[in-house]
Amino acid sequence: MLPQDIIAKKRDGFALTQKEIETFVSGVVSGAFTDYQSTALLMAIYLNGMTHEETAQLTSAMMRSGRIVELPEITRPKVDKHSTGGVGDKVSLILAPLAAACGLCVPMMSGRGLGHTGGTLDKLESIPGFSVELDDAAYRRQLDAIHLAMIGQSADMVPADRKLYALRDVTGTVESIPLICASILSKKLAEGIDALVLDVKCGSGAFMKTEARARELAEALVRISRGVGKPTSAIITRMEQPLGRAVGNSLEVVETIACLQGEGPEDLMECTFALTAEMLRLGGICHSEAEARHCMESAIADGRAMEAFRELVSAQGGLIEVIEHTSRLPQTRERREVRFTGESTAFVSGLDALAVGEAARLLGAGRANAEAVIDPAVGIYLWKKTGETVAPGECLATLHYNDIRHLEAAQQRLAGAFTFSQNPPEVPALIIGRIDV
Amino acid sequence: MLPQDIIAKKRDGFALTQKEIETFVSGVVSGAFTDYQSTALLMAIYLNGMTHEETAQLTSAMMRSGRIVELPEITRPKVDKHSTGGVGDKVSLILAPLAAACGLCVPMMSGRGLGHTGGTLDKLESIPGFSVELDDAAYRRQLDAIHLAMIGQSADMVPADRKLYALRDVTGTVESIPLICASILSKKLAEGIDALVLDVKCGSGAFMKTEARARELAEALVRISRGVGKPTSAIITRMEQPLGRAVGNSLEVVETIACLQGEGPEDLMECTFALTAEMLRLGGICHSEAEARHCMESAIADGRAMEAFRELVSAQGGLIEVIEHTSRLPQTRERREVRFTGESTAFVSGLDALAVGEAARLLGAGRANAEAVIDPAVGIYLWKKTGETVAPGECLATLHYNDIRHLEAAQQRLAGAFTFSQNPPEVPALIIGRIDV
Repeated sequence: MLPQDIIAKKRDGFALTQKEIETFVSGVVSGAFTDYQSTALLMAIYLNGMTHEETAQLTSAMMRSGRIVELPEITRPKVDKHSTGGVGDKVSLILAPLAAACGLCVPMMSGRGLGHTGGTLDKLESIPGFSVELDDAAYRRQLDAIHLAMIGQSADMVPADRKLYALRDVTGTVESIPLICASILSKKLAEGIDALVLDVKCGSGAFMKTEARARELAEALVRISRGVGKPTSAIITRMEQPLGRAVGNSLEVVETIACLQGEGPEDLMECTFALTAEMLRLGGICHSEAEARHCMESAIADGRAMEAFRELVSAQGGLIEVIEHTSRLPQTRERREVRFTGESTAFVSGLDALAVGEAARLLGAGRANAEAVIDPAVGIYLWKKTGETVAPGECLATLHYNDIRHLEAAQQRLAGAFTFSQNPPEVPALIIGRIDV
Repeated sequence: MLPQDIIAKKRDGFALTQKEIETFVSGVVSGAFTDYQSTALLMAIYLNGMTHEETAQLTSAMMRSGRIVELPEITRPKVDKHSTGGVGDKVSLILAPLAAACGLCVPMMSGRGLGHTGGTLDKLESIPGFSVELDDAAYRRQLDAIHLAMIGQSADMVPADRKLYALRDVTGTVESIPLICASILSKKLAEGIDALVLDVKCGSGAFMKTEARARELAEALVRISRGVGKPTSAIITRMEQPLGRAVGNSLEVVETIACLQGEGPEDLMECTFALTAEMLRLGGICHSEAEARHCMESAIADGRAMEAFRELVSAQGGLIEVIEHTSRLPQTRERREVRFTGESTAFVSGLDALAVGEAARLLGAGRANAEAVIDPAVGIYLWKKTGETVAPGECLATLHYNDIRHLEAAQQRLAGAFTFSQNPPEVPALIIGRIDV
């Protein structure tokens, strides 16, 4: 079976067989499928699609392209969450200890990827000493001891995805639902979890710009993940404005700590609770929405969630003092405030997540390319969000910066993210729907 | 302008601008467009097409990717022919000296490419000593002296096509009309010709399998070539059975010599005359079909066409004795006959060109990949063609072979190429149409 024959079949709109998909994926890893053959096939998949069956086979073949973790020794239900990503999305940092405190095991592995702000690993690494690289034995010991680990996926896992993602990124083949599904699920299913919850975001700051596209992706993800035997559900959440008030790695850790102390912003907690509740339900810990809500609220109120976070930081070598003294986290030398220049009190009618994300990236909070180095201290704190009132001269946001070079551009981008109105705007619900096919 | 942005635009079905097409083509040559980005764009072009304007711009950009020959010192009209290729297609070898004998200058440059049987260069190289590599000065001297040269295109010409063709060949992106047009025309238009005639073949042994597809390609080629200012016409010819009776490099030279001596097979001469007449018309040498016919027939009858061939062979270092003594051409050590096994006289109702071509390639007449070495002596001689009668035990074809390894497979493939009937089959006209937009 030659690569060009497999490419031609997909080019002509036919479904590939399991054997053909496996030949592709193993060829990507071995080199039998060259990069230029892979990208021709990726474009044909982008344009001609894949059936659910093909996508499931692609997911499975990619998952099996490297080492698969199995955790039979863990008796607690092992449940993980994946988010398609958004600006200010630090849900994983709150949800993982919260879920562990409620009785789950959370063996969370993340990738790095590009983004306006860092990913989960980057946020955790803003804690001095925190290491996201654990060897297999240490990982298992930690899961056994504290039921929680948050690490980077090692290079021997899902190598096909690493290769294909790098190619997709530079060939206009990222936004393909079958390819996104296979990429996300192959990585998560290689972790040895019992169930999976997905946060599919939609809006200006998300990968999927429209609700219809987000729903399509969420349905495909749930169907395929269930097709390979994993209980899975998805929540579709709005990402028009950033989640919470902090955007930028160490600023988001500060906000995480506040959340675990019961002082988190409403939208962030709503999103975190909805996703954690799904995890508790799929893991069999809770059997109703009310039960899950009670379970989560007590874990925060009595400090067990915070304690789980402390154990995580301690187990992975991080400085636990940051929890009591967040000033021990990296801080910028400089700050600049963006103030409201209107002449009378107004409502914030919109706060464009994409613009805030780009402003944060300009300050150095995220990567424009794989080589870029993140500054953990920089970011943006949003004093005002959609629906809130702002008086003339009042502060809208604070830029935390070290490097003045892109400050002006970042400030302009950030100021332009806000829109105002005289009448209270309608703020649509954060949670759009749940996909539980 | 990033490669991925250009790719995404075509992926989404938009027409590319001239600047974007030029960025692509120059990037292919410089490496700014990586191979894996090029193939993603090629697949997007394959699936979403290109307008005539885009195709003309792609052609022009590819033509300008390397050295362009200009031949202002040549006073004769410079006209060339290109064929999309078929089994037993040795028309160029007859047509070029014939056209030169009739008053044209034929500066023919060919590529090698893959195929069931060798290309024009391979056929010429079966003449001992014949060189298809001339430097620019020798090439010009020869054109000035004998108005005829048949050489390989040098590496500094149309480098973008060489790169793209190699990628298309292994990524299922060959059969795209805009890409085919740009590949063919960029090479021919870089030769410095005044006019161009195209032989677009259709049928089992051709690149284009259906008449509709062949017509589509022919129309696109003529429109685009004229769009860049070259008088151009195309003839659509049938390639269901091989052209002439000889298939294989030196066997085809023998048949070429017979043609130039007025003893060629009818179908081969019909095709050659039709194409040469177009060249004479576009070159302004003849103004009617009848005039061209008279001109060509006299050039063969009085030996001027044969003389032009002799001058060509001599000028490019070939052994001219082969013309009188074709046994001086490479010959195989062995032959095997394929006989008719029917019990009563029948008609050959069909002779599948593709099967004959594959049988010849199995014997070593053509390349399965770029590294394969051609055996100039091997091939197939067809004693019977469609519409002819065959008696029990009579010879259908002779296999000329040196290597016994693939002989059985070749013989089976060849025997299977013939079909028979009791009633005379309808033999459709060889020339399907002329495109002269």
